[in-house]
Amino acid sequence: MSKFIVIGERIHCISPVIREAMNNMQPEPILKRAKEQIDAGAAYIDVNIGPAEKNGVELMKWAVKLLQDNFDNIPLALDTANMKAIEAGISVYNRSKGKPIVNSADAGDRVEFLDMAAANEAICIALCSKAGVPSDNDERNAYCQELLERGLGLGMEPEDIWFDPLFLVIKGMQDKQRDVLNFIKDLSDMGLNSTGGLSNVSNMMPKHIRPIMDSCMLAMAMQCGLTSAIVNPCDIRLMETVKSCDIIKNETLYADSYLEL
Amino acid sequence: MSKFIVIGERIHCISPVIREAMNNMQPEPILKRAKEQIDAGAAYIDVNIGPAEKNGVELMKWAVKLLQDNFDNIPLALDTANMKAIEAGISVYNRSKGKPIVNSADAGDRVEFLDMAAANEAICIALCSKAGVPSDNDERNAYCQELLERGLGLGMEPEDIWFDPLFLVIKGMQDKQRDVLNFIKDLSDMGLNSTGGLSNVSNMMPKHIRPIMDSCMLAMAMQCGLTSAIVNPCDIRLMETVKSCDIIKNETLYADSYLEL
Repeated sequence: MSKFIVIGERIHCISPVIREAMNNMQPEPILKRAKEQIDAGAAYIDVNIGPAEKNGVELMKWAVKLLQDNFDNIPLALDTANMKAIEAGISVYNRSKGKPIVNSADAGDRVEFLDMAAANEAICIALCSKAGVPSDNDERNAYCQELLERGLGLGMEPEDIWFDPLFLVIKGMQDKQRDVLNFIKDLSDMGLNSTGGLSNVSNMMPKHIRPIMDSCMLAMAMQCGLTSAIVNPCDIRLMETVKSCDIIKNETLYADSYLEL
Repeated sequence: MSKFIVIGERIHCISPVIREAMNNMQPEPILKRAKEQIDAGAAYIDVNIGPAEKNGVELMKWAVKLLQDNFDNIPLALDTANMKAIEAGISVYNRSKGKPIVNSADAGDRVEFLDMAAANEAICIALCSKAGVPSDNDERNAYCQELLERGLGLGMEPEDIWFDPLFLVIKGMQDKQRDVLNFIKDLSDMGLNSTGGLSNVSNMMPKHIRPIMDSCMLAMAMQCGLTSAIVNPCDIRLMETVKSCDIIKNETLYADSYLEL
């Protein structure tokens, strides 16, 4: 049995509250959001510090220690375009509850993030893209193979590369959704792990629709074999979906109380 | 584009209100439930009159005329173990909005329902079972092929046989759910239509869980290619799921108002 892995997305510098807390290194708003996500069922917490060109090293070290000290070494995804900041975060990271995740490499400018993840024995999220959105699954697969070969060549275990198919916005790319799902199935058939920013599918939709659309996409993606996603674990409908699909897939045992577990 | 087909299950003699209305041939309770289901998005209405050994012929004719006269010849699924009652219903059925559905044949004692559907140019729901629950997908497939060959031999179009994989209750058969989903995928890969009593999966679960579990199963089944289901269209979460999955599958065009359509 291997339960679906929820990576909580809400510690993100795009949020004004979090940005200010990061700017001033104030623990409270960050701890509050982390607790909410862990209580809601997040297995990993993503820590997105933005580009962080100036103070990334210091900021990521601070955030990693803050979160792991307060939440029993909760495993983290370290998320920034500043590679040195991720390396710095890993240097103070405690692995007792799981490896750090490098978020993220791609087959283009960010391919070195994979090398860095390999050198640090970290998990790496690998976007199946080079420059922009892949036009079809042949392209996705070419980048996937490129990244897989590179990672294996550097001594990584295949299960430590989590391939991201790139979830696409329905408003504008409705006819591409089947491709994404089919590619997740391909990854699953190859025995590879997968993840991605799932809520991108409902971008620009009315607020009341987003949890509905996200949940449906998640159930369909879990049927195709998606093994994790970067989502808002405080979205109740979405978490109900994760837990129910894990039951249907026989990854967790059913109990009448399963939604509360 | 071919939208998912919802068959409304709520005109069923298991309901005390409906049973009494059927016993006394009172139109109002039946019309009320039909309207609720049509308003909620049912494409077909199932009419389950139970075994109806005594008055089945008269009752089914009455129900078919009642519903079609009041709802612009809404297409119906005629549901009873009394074959003569279904034939009688078909004899007064108006096909302007769609063929009648015979609910149902199987590969065992009820195989003659398929012959009767063929003779009457009706759609037939064909359970992939003989006596009891099929033990695996080899068995499901054997019955499916048997019924398909028989139907084709009688001049039916393959798209007029809607194969039912038999949805199984999670409480007791949790480890069989993947099989059901995989078999739906097999049917879809063969280009065959499918349907079934989906809410069976959540049977015996607490009431608040059932719409959640049913919706997740439905999204996963729609990803596998399920083309219709016999469900409660008044379950809001379930209908939101049908509509959202149709969007993701590109079977209907997205609009911000799609949930109201």
